[in-house]
Amino acid sequence: MQTDSYIIQVNGSVAHPKVLDVHVNIQGPNGVEKMKGRKPRWAVRASEMSKKTFNPIRAIVDTMTAVPNPNKKMIALSIGDPTVFGNLPTDGQVTRAMKEAIDSQKYNGYAPSIGYQSSREVIAKYYTCQEAPLEAKDVILTSGCSQAIELALAVLANPGQNILVPRPGFSLYKTLALSLGVEVKLYNLLPEKSWEIDLKHMESLADDKTACIIINNPSNPCGSVFSKKHLQKVLAVASRQCVPILADEIYGDMVFEEGTFEFLAPLSTNVPILSCGGLAKRWLVPGWRMGWILIHDRKEIFGKEIREGLVRLSQRILGPCTIVQGALEHIVNRTPQEFYDNTINFIKSNADLCYTTLSSVPGLCPVQPAGAMYLMVGIDMEHFPEFESDVDFTERMISEQSVFCLPATCFEYPNYFRIVLTVPEEMMIEACRRIREFCEQHYQGGEGTQDLECDK
Amino acid sequence: MQTDSYIIQVNGSVAHPKVLDVHVNIQGPNGVEKMKGRKPRWAVRASEMSKKTFNPIRAIVDTMTAVPNPNKKMIALSIGDPTVFGNLPTDGQVTRAMKEAIDSQKYNGYAPSIGYQSSREVIAKYYTCQEAPLEAKDVILTSGCSQAIELALAVLANPGQNILVPRPGFSLYKTLALSLGVEVKLYNLLPEKSWEIDLKHMESLADDKTACIIINNPSNPCGSVFSKKHLQKVLAVASRQCVPILADEIYGDMVFEEGTFEFLAPLSTNVPILSCGGLAKRWLVPGWRMGWILIHDRKEIFGKEIREGLVRLSQRILGPCTIVQGALEHIVNRTPQEFYDNTINFIKSNADLCYTTLSSVPGLCPVQPAGAMYLMVGIDMEHFPEFESDVDFTERMISEQSVFCLPATCFEYPNYFRIVLTVPEEMMIEACRRIREFCEQHYQGGEGTQDLECDK
Repeated sequence: MQTDSYIIQVNGSVAHPKVLDVHVNIQGPNGVEKMKGRKPRWAVRASEMSKKTFNPIRAIVDTMTAVPNPNKKMIALSIGDPTVFGNLPTDGQVTRAMKEAIDSQKYNGYAPSIGYQSSREVIAKYYTCQEAPLEAKDVILTSGCSQAIELALAVLANPGQNILVPRPGFSLYKTLALSLGVEVKLYNLLPEKSWEIDLKHMESLADDKTACIIINNPSNPCGSVFSKKHLQKVLAVASRQCVPILADEIYGDMVFEEGTFEFLAPLSTNVPILSCGGLAKRWLVPGWRMGWILIHDRKEIFGKEIREGLVRLSQRILGPCTIVQGALEHIVNRTPQEFYDNTINFIKSNADLCYTTLSSVPGLCPVQPAGAMYLMVGIDMEHFPEFESDVDFTERMISEQSVFCLPATCFEYPNYFRIVLTVPEEMMIEACRRIREFCEQHYQGGEGTQDLECDK
Repeated sequence: MQTDSYIIQVNGSVAHPKVLDVHVNIQGPNGVEKMKGRKPRWAVRASEMSKKTFNPIRAIVDTMTAVPNPNKKMIALSIGDPTVFGNLPTDGQVTRAMKEAIDSQKYNGYAPSIGYQSSREVIAKYYTCQEAPLEAKDVILTSGCSQAIELALAVLANPGQNILVPRPGFSLYKTLALSLGVEVKLYNLLPEKSWEIDLKHMESLADDKTACIIINNPSNPCGSVFSKKHLQKVLAVASRQCVPILADEIYGDMVFEEGTFEFLAPLSTNVPILSCGGLAKRWLVPGWRMGWILIHDRKEIFGKEIREGLVRLSQRILGPCTIVQGALEHIVNRTPQEFYDNTINFIKSNADLCYTTLSSVPGLCPVQPAGAMYLMVGIDMEHFPEFESDVDFTERMISEQSVFCLPATCFEYPNYFRIVLTVPEEMMIEACRRIREFCEQHYQGGEGTQDLECDK
């Protein structure tokens, strides 16, 4: 079974780094210890960078020691990979395009490190619009959206600078930033406003060392989708503070109501934006590692410097698999609308089911999602005095109900947990049933108050 | 046409970094410049890291302004990509394995960031041997051999440390090291000894800041293959100095005489070795970006620390394309021996042809290769007083003969040029004919002395 690399199976056998592993080796430089007149001896140490690179999700999940209830089949609502259960295969046109690319024997050699010109043209044409025109030169193909984010951060930020990151938010931003020696400042999302950004809070964090603002829309873990108006306000902040935006739009177009998603770049005339995306979610092939950066810079604020920096950085490991690059044209142009619609309808149906069920569960406050493939659920911890935290809560849900949700502490947001909505419907129903049972067994305090609390 | 990302077409239209671009921004930290009481203004700068990342080959080749002779069809002997001319397709079993992996729909999701357990087992079984046993836990799958080298360097070396790198040698080592702030110390290879390492020189460079020694065997750009005895001496140096080895063995098994290639690890009982390899060259699919690190650590000198560091670093962008991972088992186990033999026989035939022809060209001293896909040719510059350097020499060869060879200054080794041996035979013959004509036209000085000079 494939596992999401960010999301760990409980009781995995590999030893993973803990937060406490992140320390500076104070016994001198790493490597061989050698002194004058002394024989060299073996002392190979892992680099500072490797020690600074860690995944907060692992750090938390690996401390969870729960063993699933042996009488109940495990249901993992934790894995942000829509392919895990086999219910969401990619489209036939996508696999056909891949096989044609293989048979052509045209895509075995090296591509330029930023991708074939023709493949970059395909992506430029697919995403170009009048307000934010794109050409091949504005597209950098990367090994998955993760590398897109890595390159974007690496070109914009120096050690000692900071970036503004949503809370709750996807853990990779922090993993990458810390590995680069870049500080992370968390700006708040507001659950009572469908996870809109607390704009005042965000703006208050910007200072002369702020290298970029990360905007994730639609959001992992929230499943929220920002309105055009809200995005315009976000742009106004960036414009006032003169800070570029890294837009993580990997869930772009994955919204439950048609027309509610807006890419950020067309709404701005001046803010320079690196938009990161890829095939992973919309085409349901996250393992294929095909991502991209779209460079939006209509006022030439990034200029040649950032573009050349991205080209240089791309030369470190070269781009994504050439077969997928060769298949890109047919993947984005031949996949029928029906395929996208089916995926979204499926996720929306699970979202409705999950939201409706959990809304009536004592002590839980689900927040209705509008896109992506996640739903966040608030835990009214006062009514669950047995549990110290969301980590404790979700751990016990594993041992008693064999249902695994990620505690939102993984996203810097305690007292919530995240549900992945791509599991088969019957599994979703059964999981919600068990979550209800779990909460009913542990809920303490007056009934009927949970609705009020949800409005907090 | 695919182009090797490390090798640039002359007169390419993209602006590339020059060496002079590498400088420290002395006007304060990058990013927004903001002062108290002053309105922020836009000033987005590329990071130091992006400026430190540069490809020496580009820096040199981009200064070459030669226009090919319009009366002669261009022959590029510069591109280290065996697929460019279509004469070396991969095996049918390889493409079949890929299509089966696609059809299975089993390999669309995320793999663990170091690769599927099953795929790592395949590689472990393929390369294990009694003297250097490998299990899945000793294998890290990467996005091409470039990422293998990147991860290996990033886990072993801190900024301020140094690594020992062969001269002449593949430029990526330096590109990656400098981008990580790691110093490069070049140890000499000896052309008169078939490019064996000057072991005394190498050992003299090791100090208490040496993080690893890079050994590239078979060699790019030399096409040389080290004997077992020589490799044992290399290991003795590493052992005495207590420095681990990064073995770039991407051309492993690609040797002209059966039994002459030895992987490094089985020859050692104590030196910890990260062996980097991949599908690129032997299976003729460099664009697919499937590489690996084999961890050899029989004395547990790397220990848990280096292994965990590699796992952490792999989480930054996750691993290689899952389709290629899924196809790995059949790729390595079903490809017939005949395929490997045919490739090698073809390259060997071109090598013999090229070496024989150029040996009798006045002023040239080709060095006979024993593997990989390259041949280095010394230029007796005294007899070509018109030309200032190998860069000048190869530039004029473009403008007069439309033959493009990389000046070995690209590999830190002036007065040589590199020939790629994977071009179709008739192209090889024609290129050698033109190189002879070029040298005969420009050679000055007594005939008959060049044989002596070749023995220098």
